Amino acid sequence: MKIICTQENLNKALSIVGKVVNKNTTLPILNNVLLKTDKKGLQLSSTNLEIAVNYWIGGKTEEDGEITVPTKLFANFISNLPNGNVEIKTREDMVNIKCNGYKINIKGVDAREYPLSPKIDAVPFLKIKSEIFKRALSQVIPAISVSESRMEITGVLLDLSEIKKNKIVLVSTDSYRLAEKTLKVSPENVSQEALEVLGDLKSVIIPRSTVQELVRDLGEGDEMLDIIISENQIVFTFGSANILSRLIEGRYPDYRQIVPEKFMANAIINVKDITNAVRISGFFSASSNNSVKFLLSADNKVEISSEASEIGNNNAKIEAKITGKDLEVVYNYKYLMDGLNSIIGDEVVLDANDENAPSVIKSVKDDSFIYIIMPIRG
Amino acid sequence: MKIICTQENLNKALSIVGKVVNKNTTLPILNNVLLKTDKKGLQLSSTNLEIAVNYWIGGKTEEDGEITVPTKLFANFISNLPNGNVEIKTREDMVNIKCNGYKINIKGVDAREYPLSPKIDAVPFLKIKSEIFKRALSQVIPAISVSESRMEITGVLLDLSEIKKNKIVLVSTDSYRLAEKTLKVSPENVSQEALEVLGDLKSVIIPRSTVQELVRDLGEGDEMLDIIISENQIVFTFGSANILSRLIEGRYPDYRQIVPEKFMANAIINVKDITNAVRISGFFSASSNNSVKFLLSADNKVEISSEASEIGNNNAKIEAKITGKDLEVVYNYKYLMDGLNSIIGDEVVLDANDENAPSVIKSVKDDSFIYIIMPIRG
Repeated sequence: MKIICTQENLNKALSIVGKVVNKNTTLPILNNVLLKTDKKGLQLSSTNLEIAVNYWIGGKTEEDGEITVPTKLFANFISNLPNGNVEIKTREDMVNIKCNGYKINIKGVDAREYPLSPKIDAVPFLKIKSEIFKRALSQVIPAISVSESRMEITGVLLDLSEIKKNKIVLVSTDSYRLAEKTLKVSPENVSQEALEVLGDLKSVIIPRSTVQELVRDLGEGDEMLDIIISENQIVFTFGSANILSRLIEGRYPDYRQIVPEKFMANAIINVKDITNAVRISGFFSASSNNSVKFLLSADNKVEISSEASEIGNNNAKIEAKITGKDLEVVYNYKYLMDGLNSIIGDEVVLDANDENAPSVIKSVKDDSFIYIIMPIRG
Repeated sequence: MKIICTQENLNKALSIVGKVVNKNTTLPILNNVLLKTDKKGLQLSSTNLEIAVNYWIGGKTEEDGEITVPTKLFANFISNLPNGNVEIKTREDMVNIKCNGYKINIKGVDAREYPLSPKIDAVPFLKIKSEIFKRALSQVIPAISVSESRMEITGVLLDLSEIKKNKIVLVSTDSYRLAEKTLKVSPENVSQEALEVLGDLKSVIIPRSTVQELVRDLGEGDEMLDIIISENQIVFTFGSANILSRLIEGRYPDYRQIVPEKFMANAIINVKDITNAVRISGFFSASSNNSVKFLLSADNKVEISSEASEIGNNNAKIEAKITGKDLEVVYNYKYLMDGLNSIIGDEVVLDANDENAPSVIKSVKDDSFIYIIMPIRG
């Protein structure tokens, strides 16, 4: 193999491909990145057997070939090389890298020992702007369950059941809170052919690590994202990269049942004010079950308080527009902070119930994202 | 105690006083900060029995008093309060904090349980610009010994023996490398009276943690620093703060003996080029005794290389102006990087010897800082 490409492109590729974390210590080759020339130039690939990331960069191929090299070492070298052309050449299992006065030789491992990436022939069923999908994923990430006792909620549900009504829904929950984001899709970006192939498949569950990888890698601006689903795999293609991931098997809970329809009180509050008051309450909550108490009263004030015996207590009164009856309700401050941090806009609506039913928070301006939170019972 | 001051001032004070790390788990009150009203306003103090930091902020005292509160909790609250006036009031051992809708009560501990800060009556013997002293300390920090087997080199030597020639010297070493920074002082900033009191004391050793604290806290611009030495203590007064520290006892090695006078070869190299080449070599050095090999040759090139068996090797040729004979010498890349990172300016002079004598690096433009490094023997 012999190829010439630029340091800048290699570095960008490795910043994406090199982030796939290998949890598999029994297969050390997974700590390597696969380099492979093809018609377009150089393909860099990395996998941990759950996710595979491929990235293509342009280059002048002088001799076809493939090899794997230790990812971290290779990425460290490349990122410290000066900008300009980099020549990569293999001689048996040695990889020679030349760039502007630097010569580096790294011992590689035969590419045939690298696990094959599954080939997916299915057609993309959906095109969506990368940046919109990225922001949506980042809003639902915090509520993904971290407990492995119920694997089906350790990922994000991608609900396609209303795709014919031009919307898809992303959902996450850990049973204490639930985040739901609805995205509009344009009919011309939905492939009818692909949908027919999917048939009865109305939703898939994307693992947390894949969601995190997407949030890291998806671009902004005009970049479009293609999504392909095929059996137990999902593929995201964007820019010069694709990410291929297994799906989580199992039945996601029926989240629509959880969304409350009636509320006892409703408060419209400045996001900065409530976030700050909840954060301050958190300093005492940590030693008392994380609880922060809300008091919604007819005088258009929300009183937010917390207490830690032997340490102290605090209390903040903030302005709000309140309708409904006076209400006292206790939340987990961490869960509340996660929800508030996902709100886009200056004002948040808190649709609240007492300790027996969940509350909902959403942006005043944009109800495509709702965050449902269970109160702490007294 | 009752005082009104601003959130901004309190926050600034706590960002300095709150950084003193308590290593003493048997005296939990050291995790608290002492609040004490005085004529000027509020004094905040913190100590770990090695260093004491005091900071004064202006305020409107309505009732004199003093109390201690948990530093981290108090600092967290203050930093999250909105800008504006903060009222601090004690009621027995409870501290009430009020600010713009927020009410916080923290349980405090009687100030009489807090260790007394020693009073120092001595006169400052030296005034120097804070930013100059700060930069000088940051240049010598990396070479301070971390091994506790020789306590006398676990700090920075402040050598006053040439203060009458209007210079002081800061020195650090871990016996593998030595950093020496000479600072000019103006005669009008040296107190003859204080020097007489010091008498035969020609140098003191300032503990590493105090040096780190100073580098963090010293200001920039026109701020001046006063230094007071008294028996086993040193006091640094600057802005609204003072830092009081114990000194390290013991005899610092005679560093002047170590500075080599003769060199076999001399290279003038671009700092960015050499730093990058050494950093790249470091990726292989890590698994081979941290060694990086320098080859100075008559063709005005420095060749920097490293090797790790079973992993690979690398080699960089960079331009240099070389005089003297061809020379091969091996350094510890970490020690070399520390020295290069402390060089101010675009070009570095490497005065090199073979494996039997130390090399010296310094800036082409400024020889007030020199960094001596022992080669690794083959």
